[in-house]
Amino acid sequence: MGDFKTIGIPGRASAAVGESLRQLTDFLSRRELSIVLGESVAQLLPDNPFPVKSHAKMGESCDLIIVLGGDGSLLGAARVLARFSVPVLGINRGRLGFLTDILPDEIEARVGAVLAGEYIIDKRFLLSAVVKREGQVIGRAEALNDVVVNSGTSAQMIEFDLYIDNEFVYRQRSDGMIVSTPTGSTAYSLSGGGPIMHPKLDAVVLVPMFPHTLSSRPIVIDGNSEIRLETSDSNVIHPPVTCDGQVNITAMPGDTVYITKRRYKLKLIHPTDHSFYASCRDKLGWGSALV
Amino acid sequence: MGDFKTIGIPGRASAAVGESLRQLTDFLSRRELSIVLGESVAQLLPDNPFPVKSHAKMGESCDLIIVLGGDGSLLGAARVLARFSVPVLGINRGRLGFLTDILPDEIEARVGAVLAGEYIIDKRFLLSAVVKREGQVIGRAEALNDVVVNSGTSAQMIEFDLYIDNEFVYRQRSDGMIVSTPTGSTAYSLSGGGPIMHPKLDAVVLVPMFPHTLSSRPIVIDGNSEIRLETSDSNVIHPPVTCDGQVNITAMPGDTVYITKRRYKLKLIHPTDHSFYASCRDKLGWGSALV
Amino acid sequence: MGDFKTIGIPGRASAAVGESLRQLTDFLSRRELSIVLGESVAQLLPDNPFPVKSHAKMGESCDLIIVLGGDGSLLGAARVLARFSVPVLGINRGRLGFLTDILPDEIEARVGAVLAGEYIIDKRFLLSAVVKREGQVIGRAEALNDVVVNSGTSAQMIEFDLYIDNEFVYRQRSDGMIVSTPTGSTAYSLSGGGPIMHPKLDAVVLVPMFPHTLSSRPIVIDGNSEIRLETSDSNVIHPPVTCDGQVNITAMPGDTVYITKRRYKLKLIHPTDHSFYASCRDKLGWGSALV
Amino acid sequence: MGDFKTIGIPGRASAAVGESLRQLTDFLSRRELSIVLGESVAQLLPDNPFPVKSHAKMGESCDLIIVLGGDGSLLGAARVLARFSVPVLGINRGRLGFLTDILPDEIEARVGAVLAGEYIIDKRFLLSAVVKREGQVIGRAEALNDVVVNSGTSAQMIEFDLYIDNEFVYRQRSDGMIVSTPTGSTAYSLSGGGPIMHPKLDAVVLVPMFPHTLSSRPIVIDGNSEIRLETSDSNVIHPPVTCDGQVNITAMPGDTVYITKRRYKLKLIHPTDHSFYASCRDKLGWGSALV
Repeated sequence: MGDFKTIGIPGRASAAVGESLRQLTDFLSRRELSIVLGESVAQLLPDNPFPVKSHAKMGESCDLIIVLGGDGSLLGAARVLARFSVPVLGINRGRLGFLTDILPDEIEARVGAVLAGEYIIDKRFLLSAVVKREGQVIGRAEALNDVVVNSGTSAQMIEFDLYIDNEFVYRQRSDGMIVSTPTGSTAYSLSGGGPIMHPKLDAVVLVPMFPHTLSSRPIVIDGNSEIRLETSDSNVIHPPVTCDGQVNITAMPGDTVYITKRRYKLKLIHPTDHSFYASCRDKLGWGSALV
Repeated sequence: MGDFKTIGIPGRASAAVGESLRQLTDFLSRRELSIVLGESVAQLLPDNPFPVKSHAKMGESCDLIIVLGGDGSLLGAARVLARFSVPVLGINRGRLGFLTDILPDEIEARVGAVLAGEYIIDKRFLLSAVVKREGQVIGRAEALNDVVVNSGTSAQMIEFDLYIDNEFVYRQRSDGMIVSTPTGSTAYSLSGGGPIMHPKLDAVVLVPMFPHTLSSRPIVIDGNSEIRLETSDSNVIHPPVTCDGQVNITAMPGDTVYITKRRYKLKLIHPTDHSFYASCRDKLGWGSALV
Repeated sequence: MGDFKTIGIPGRASAAVGESLRQLTDFLSRRELSIVLGESVAQLLPDNPFPVKSHAKMGESCDLIIVLGGDGSLLGAARVLARFSVPVLGINRGRLGFLTDILPDEIEARVGAVLAGEYIIDKRFLLSAVVKREGQVIGRAEALNDVVVNSGTSAQMIEFDLYIDNEFVYRQRSDGMIVSTPTGSTAYSLSGGGPIMHPKLDAVVLVPMFPHTLSSRPIVIDGNSEIRLETSDSNVIHPPVTCDGQVNITAMPGDTVYITKRRYKLKLIHPTDHSFYASCRDKLGWGSALV
Repeated sequence: MGDFKTIGIPGRASAAVGESLRQLTDFLSRRELSIVLGESVAQLLPDNPFPVKSHAKMGESCDLIIVLGGDGSLLGAARVLARFSVPVLGINRGRLGFLTDILPDEIEARVGAVLAGEYIIDKRFLLSAVVKREGQVIGRAEALNDVVVNSGTSAQMIEFDLYIDNEFVYRQRSDGMIVSTPTGSTAYSLSGGGPIMHPKLDAVVLVPMFPHTLSSRPIVIDGNSEIRLETSDSNVIHPPVTCDGQVNITAMPGDTVYITKRRYKLKLIHPTDHSFYASCRDKLGWGSALV
């Protein structure tokens, strides 16, 4: 057997997840591997015999994490687990996800292969968002997909000055700004007109949301750049800073948001036949012709 | 002299508006026309000698309305005044607006020409938004530019079924939907990827906001269509219905929003040399080449 | 029986069309209706017993036209047949088309219903393109989907002045311009960023192709407008004028292209349960969600 | 003085270029620097006293190249000069270009500063396009901005299979494909909906032109990727391969186009206060607000 002796299983409880959970724990138990469950999925097993741990404790003690659920569940687990350098595998409960690329009926074959050492490690970087008020940090959060700074309110715009690596880019009035990693480039950023970025690319895209100026287009910059949004004192709104679709920090007019790459990466595990472009064909319907 | 004997002047008080207000009232007084001021601008004249009225009272009693300010001020006045069939002229305090196309230093010449009967009447239709809950109307509002139904909250999507003239179009998950008149097609709708529509067109455009499906594109339909958005019971958000950028009604999950054309139109007045395309060239920078 | 006694069947010869042709002619023969074949499809029947006619002759003598093939075949037939006011029905040999909305295995049921008088007439307007050189007409063509004026050459731009109803819009440098009907709005125009327009809308959309100016967006105007493109004398290319994807006229630098609505319309026949939005859902994949 | 002793001056002859040429050669002569002229600009000086050389000979013998003209002139010179590692400075004869960022009336001050050693070196990579037929190379070209493979003909589509690093991406039917460097991302690629890419980014963007499938979006990949377009045998057109807007190779149906990064880079020289984002603000009108 390989190096994976203790397996952590986080996820969000649902009927579909429960079904896969029983199948997966049976399979791992037969192989005499140690199993640790997340708090939500543990409730799916009556008389659960396995230890239950938080994401962070899993990160410290497990050799492999298998997330049951969709890309959303994996994002949540990954933001906590990335710093522990434990590899993460995703089993999807629907169509293939971009991040969770094993289907429920492939569990035995696919997880078996991974346990036998047949897998690809795909490192994905995360973004850090820090909000400062008069020089003091008032909030921190991180994102695997995207950081969104917007007005948070219907019918309101936000005004901010954008700086990249200390260089002034522009003053923008818009509904907000999406800052996305390559991982997030097939999610919210894409629906806002951003480009698809290959996961291996060390780059970040800035996608303006309903900008006041027609010539404001998505900008792709080096992944090591420091992005700084200085929100205007004259805003009447309190802009939320949203990481992977979770509101993490609420800024005040005049606050500054810094977005940079984290120094550690998520180790995502794929089957050896994984293909990013195949996921795109499946998820984006590249096969379906127009006329 | 022409038919305009009583002139109403609404607008939002500001230093710039005050300057134009003195110039305009002097000019109209010299011509012995009756003047009625809106409540906000009346505060700009110390010892104001003119009667002060609400928008609605102006609509009943005036022969001509001259709005001082930007397109926003004109939108606010127009939503009230449209039903009274009184013509409306806009004087802009910045660059030319799409709706307010007289510049401050042209007041005497341009307003003089209008009073002499030299003008174009440009009729613009308005949209009505009605929200129903279990068959009961729980809110009404109207819009000259656009009705926006969205999630109202960062990091939340709204799900709804769209029907046009009782025909099912699609179930959509997105940040929301913009429904815009031709008048609004150069405003928020345009920044969301909608087409420019000529003001004379009897049509409405539906622009999905960050739709989950890449093939959801702007749809242009006949202006007499009934648009119905049935918000899903499963939404966790309370979607605001925003008319011309003002939150007018907050819906609940399961509510239905009806959007139709109003039966009366705004009578917008332009100088005889007015050109919609010239406004586009000026406002959208059509003259500025890329490379 | 209904009013359709003589049925014309045009189309492009192919194995798939041949199969449906035999099925259709058998079905119509059993009902003792007269059949007229187009020149191409006639070759599919060895010992063809039916008279063979051109599209124009069919238009003069038939009560109903049934096109076998895809939207392309229907476009070709429709451009000739529209002026004769004969109704046209399309049977598709693939997935549903926007124009050909009967599937091969529905022929008997669906055509039977149409013959029994159960159908909807859906009138679609055509565009006329006329090219003038020093005031003289040098070419004419018409289009059901779109007229495209472009440089016709890789790596070359075209420069032209655009006028709508004699009003100057802008001077544009681009790869060209698509002028599309509502019928064409789900075809080439859509892939260039144009909006979807409901078939009942009396409007035309102008979609600039790779314009030099980022603020050049699709413009929707009244269907009765006269569009005039004055190509610049300084062009080094000879711009082709393409109607429904067929190069019909090659202009010279300095020529003027006039695009207007034709006075007659195509009478397209649909089953009574036809829905434009259902076609969109099917053809554009509106059902397939992004994440 | 600095290291620049022999200065080459290429460009395209025009009245405006002639004026700047006299100013520049006077300035350089006063400093006793050697001057070499390109063949086209040499014709602008009656009794030209300077030696005249081809771009390639300039590359071998000059220490600095100063291009007079627009971005187009610089692109032409750069494609030849990049391999010689000689630095290139651009003087623009219009508004600021993205590549030619010295204005005519700044020649003495700006060129003087560069000669004094005050400058930034900005390295830009080029793309190589190679066309193979049955395994044999039938054409090569290179591009600083972009390689475009398209149908070359109005009203015709091209079909091809796209591979990136030997991985299948999709089969596409479209008008063609733009493959752009960061340098080209503010040119043709941008008008086709591609993102702006910072010049320092080691990435390439693929922008589909009028793709048949609405979900085909721009894709940004690592600059070291190998892009392979296998054109379909069934194409009826002979697709041109266009580098920086020049048709360089005409492929045949079934040919394969390989696009990769060149191993050498153009050394572009800027004044020390150069800012990419300032060029964007100037050239793209980022300052001009919509409403």
